Amino acid sequence: MARTTVESVDFFYLAMPRIEDVGDGSQDACVVRVVAGGKVGWGECEASPLPSIAGLVAPMSHSACHPVMASVVGEPLETPDDIRRIAAKVRARSADMLQSSHTLSGIDMALWDVLGRLRDEPAWKLLGWKKSYPKLPYASVLFGDTPQQTLEKARAIRAKDFRAAKFGWGPFGTKDAQYDADHLVAAREGLGPDGILLVDAGTIWVDDVERAAKCIPALEKTRATWLEEPFISSALGSYGELAKAAAGRVRLAGGEGAHDWQVARNMIDYGGIGFVQVDAGRIGGLTDAKRVADYAQARGVTFVNHSFQSQLALNGSIQPFAGIEKDEICEYPIEARDVAYAITVERLDRGPDGMVRLPEKPGLGMTVDTARFRPYLVDVEIKVGGKLLYRTPPA
Amino acid sequence: MARTTVESVDFFYLAMPRIEDVGDGSQDACVVRVVAGGKVGWGECEASPLPSIAGLVAPMSHSACHPVMASVVGEPLETPDDIRRIAAKVRARSADMLQSSHTLSGIDMALWDVLGRLRDEPAWKLLGWKKSYPKLPYASVLFGDTPQQTLEKARAIRAKDFRAAKFGWGPFGTKDAQYDADHLVAAREGLGPDGILLVDAGTIWVDDVERAAKCIPALEKTRATWLEEPFISSALGSYGELAKAAAGRVRLAGGEGAHDWQVARNMIDYGGIGFVQVDAGRIGGLTDAKRVADYAQARGVTFVNHSFQSQLALNGSIQPFAGIEKDEICEYPIEARDVAYAITVERLDRGPDGMVRLPEKPGLGMTVDTARFRPYLVDVEIKVGGKLLYRTPPA
Repeated sequence: MARTTVESVDFFYLAMPRIEDVGDGSQDACVVRVVAGGKVGWGECEASPLPSIAGLVAPMSHSACHPVMASVVGEPLETPDDIRRIAAKVRARSADMLQSSHTLSGIDMALWDVLGRLRDEPAWKLLGWKKSYPKLPYASVLFGDTPQQTLEKARAIRAKDFRAAKFGWGPFGTKDAQYDADHLVAAREGLGPDGILLVDAGTIWVDDVERAAKCIPALEKTRATWLEEPFISSALGSYGELAKAAAGRVRLAGGEGAHDWQVARNMIDYGGIGFVQVDAGRIGGLTDAKRVADYAQARGVTFVNHSFQSQLALNGSIQPFAGIEKDEICEYPIEARDVAYAITVERLDRGPDGMVRLPEKPGLGMTVDTARFRPYLVDVEIKVGGKLLYRTPPA
Repeated sequence: MARTTVESVDFFYLAMPRIEDVGDGSQDACVVRVVAGGKVGWGECEASPLPSIAGLVAPMSHSACHPVMASVVGEPLETPDDIRRIAAKVRARSADMLQSSHTLSGIDMALWDVLGRLRDEPAWKLLGWKKSYPKLPYASVLFGDTPQQTLEKARAIRAKDFRAAKFGWGPFGTKDAQYDADHLVAAREGLGPDGILLVDAGTIWVDDVERAAKCIPALEKTRATWLEEPFISSALGSYGELAKAAAGRVRLAGGEGAHDWQVARNMIDYGGIGFVQVDAGRIGGLTDAKRVADYAQARGVTFVNHSFQSQLALNGSIQPFAGIEKDEICEYPIEARDVAYAITVERLDRGPDGMVRLPEKPGLGMTVDTARFRPYLVDVEIKVGGKLLYRTPPA
């Protein structure tokens, strides 16, 4: 019998009609369709669709700079190791093309989805987990423009029965520490004393430990569980210093910027983070995300998904740590734009107990209906040397 | 008087008519033209032109995912701090677009070039160096397909009066350690006992310390000065382990994959490298490369340029450490394709003493003649949502 191979890879650029200049990653999406053995799988790349599409089809520059597509289509796809082999092939043959990690991420996610459908197993089972545990969703929102708005957002979240909430970006960190403290106090007040409060600085301090450290007292006072991304992912030295300074008062979280599993590992080994946050749409898909989950478990670090995009991306981001019962908390966007709900028919809604559960169905267990996302489809055409390298495929 | 601002940024995709699947990065080029105050500056991005062009013009996804162009055109450009501010602005506003570091690199290089022309000073002087010291070029070539070919390549290099040579990629590391040793012995024999032998494994072992360590005895025996890139840049733990294992026998080199200065710093702080190799076309241009040079100096690590592209890129890669007298050795491609010599009128030829010197002229001190590179120009057209976002500009 002929081996099952990857027959096709298609990228779709979806977007809201108007993109706002705010820290909301759900305004567009780069959706990936993979066909193998007559089955269809879907995935999603963060963050900027056009460069990821370019990485898919870019003409070869040299032996470490191939178009990502060339290492995927035609490859055998029958076992999880086939996916790992494809990922390794992309890494080696597109090593010098920086964007290739993002391009790979959506493909890898779609490969796990389609393999699950071919083998009639959920992706999390193929990844090696015996069981998928329920996750405690934290409502992920932007800070308000004023402390009063933050207070109102926190109250609204509590009214929706969320036990945990993360506030991030917006004006936080852009003024002085007192201003940040006012937002934190407002958030705590709105959530109530028993809510889990998480704080995301959105890399605002780049690598400035001194400035970041000024927030520690207010974070301690408002009992924030973590301070996320005080710095850019590569500023390991700054993470390490701040982790030391904050020890016992607040733990650091980070990792969403990681574009391979080793980058996330470095944040654990050298950055002293207590929570490693992995975006499966950026790190190289479920394959690299699962390696981080395994590594974090062995090091006593909590794995958390990073997801501020569609329901498909949210699903993909949870698969890699589905089987870790104690790593319960999970990011859960509640202010996402319409396009984020237009890709899959199903939603990852909270159950009556307030918990989120992955489907028990094959692959990612969701149905993608192209008719739903067609209204958001953006036409893209890339020509190089007179040759059409990419045109938005029929959806 | 009106302030001088960045008036325009243009990207040009150049390529050889046929790209071969070998580890030779000189087969294409992404050249950047910046106009400010009536002067023209030039720079170059590594490595894959199409994704870098996409990063320049990609529609905004959210507040940390702007097209790079939007943070550059219209910005004041009168002092070195203006360039640093522009770079920081791109980093913040395009943080989630992975490719943006490569896109920025060529722009940053061009900004130093044009600012030098506006202020009538060489770029290295604007960067803070008092003097530009001559550099000892090492001939950078690929390993032969067989040890015999490597021997012949080494002899040819010695015949051209190079005192140092680096062999890399090709079959090295793809078979067993004995095979690698045969190539190393051949290279040493061809170079002669007094030649400086450098070895580049091209990340072939990804993160496998055990396999890499098998090469150490042969590297020691053939007195290799460094082993470059045994692993991918992010595998800091593997670098650290191998550095420890190889201590006193051979030093590690790496860093070309760094896409911001902190990534290179991490290789120094945690990877234990003795030579930090920075590609100004990938790390974010001269701005971030100079920060690495300063950091390396303070840590007793030798800075080396990484360059396997055009004469323009070579020039830009040397500027950041021009003023460090003791860091003498510099990468110098000798097998580059025609397109690599078609961008600038001048070449960085070796002087009668075998040394390479940067021009003392303003900016990068080279003349770009578009008529020279026009035969290699590749037409690119990118349309998104029916709007033409990029078309190869007139050259």
